[in-house]
Amino acid sequence: MRIAVLGTGVVGQTLAGKLAELGNEVAVGTRDVDSLMARTDPQPTGAPAFSVWLESHPGVTVATFADAAAHGEVVLLATSGTVAVDALRLAGAGNLNGKIVIDVSNPLDFSSGFPPTLAVCNTESIGEQVQRAFPAAHVVKTLNTVNAQLMTDPAAVGGGDHQLFMSGDDASAKARVAALLSEWFGWRSIIDLGDISTARGPEMYLPLWLRLMNALETPAFNIKIVRG
Amino acid sequence: MRIAVLGTGVVGQTLAGKLAELGNEVAVGTRDVDSLMARTDPQPTGAPAFSVWLESHPGVTVATFADAAAHGEVVLLATSGTVAVDALRLAGAGNLNGKIVIDVSNPLDFSSGFPPTLAVCNTESIGEQVQRAFPAAHVVKTLNTVNAQLMTDPAAVGGGDHQLFMSGDDASAKARVAALLSEWFGWRSIIDLGDISTARGPEMYLPLWLRLMNALETPAFNIKIVRG
Repeated sequence: MRIAVLGTGVVGQTLAGKLAELGNEVAVGTRDVDSLMARTDPQPTGAPAFSVWLESHPGVTVATFADAAAHGEVVLLATSGTVAVDALRLAGAGNLNGKIVIDVSNPLDFSSGFPPTLAVCNTESIGEQVQRAFPAAHVVKTLNTVNAQLMTDPAAVGGGDHQLFMSGDDASAKARVAALLSEWFGWRSIIDLGDISTARGPEMYLPLWLRLMNALETPAFNIKIVRG
Repeated sequence: MRIAVLGTGVVGQTLAGKLAELGNEVAVGTRDVDSLMARTDPQPTGAPAFSVWLESHPGVTVATFADAAAHGEVVLLATSGTVAVDALRLAGAGNLNGKIVIDVSNPLDFSSGFPPTLAVCNTESIGEQVQRAFPAAHVVKTLNTVNAQLMTDPAAVGGGDHQLFMSGDDASAKARVAALLSEWFGWRSIIDLGDISTARGPEMYLPLWLRLMNALETPAFNIKIVRG
């Protein structure tokens, strides 16, 4: 299928690479293609420059946010949460209306160093901001509680026996996203938390995730719900 | 041993009841003993009135915050997070200095209904507020990520194979708390997240916990870390 991945960092690269490998037609969206392709130094996160990464991923194309979103039957929002709504405004409501937008972003604010704080939380979430800004898109928040590698390969830890969460106002969009995440990456267990306001939960889990990454000395972990 | 439990809600009751059952001398601290004992209606949370509960727990005594804290070799802070520092001020620094204070509180703010928001989060936590207000106490944040029943009986789900977290500035206090939680309740796996500022992580997990409780239709669950 035709998929838009908005964002060129490690999350965008990992999602786009895996989705193209599976035979999808993937367009990665960015603010300014020329400026993106001119950069060759590694990103601040340690991810390779997108232009360098793209050389080894010839199945992926790069486009403006608007052209990528127009291309996609489904849109994956993989920018930083702090610029998510801006990126979608550049994509344009006309290219998003009626489509599923899978919001994998987190509102991490690194301006005071590590660990980051959240730019938005408690009474608000990026998922809600996006849904409010684009009421005709079907926003589904998910995947944001694991690192990029695990997003596309849940079996890498515990044989895949751990959980994702999902928030969104549209039940059929959530069912479709659950089916896609199973088909694409092998996710077997996704807990539907409820409407898009429940995205506050998984977004506010990030401060614990960051401290667990530090304590466990690896980002390759996830949580499994244990119940009676 | 002599233990102070500050707070008379369901968490205070459950901790005090179990610790007394184990043979400890437990004093439950409250703001105003006479006013507490005069109330007989169930609490807003559904917990029984403390006076009613106490009738079936003769091994537990009730005292002012100050008298309870003076009694305790260890202090369990089981009030709402929103009044935690106030309760400890009433307990008095002189009754806390040099002691381990196990902070199990959460800053839940129900003033706008359910699910509650957090009264404090992101760049601050109750754990940090308490440690800052009582620099000579050894504050250890833990237990706040599970409900009262699971705090005292982790084996009730998944045979106890799931995790607690712990934050605190004093390594030997954390080691002692881990030993106590194992001895008292059977906790086998407690992840040390680091200094008291890491309490932001487990406190900010509460919004996810609340929505999971809603989705799973039970508070009897916890999370297990799954790693490679």
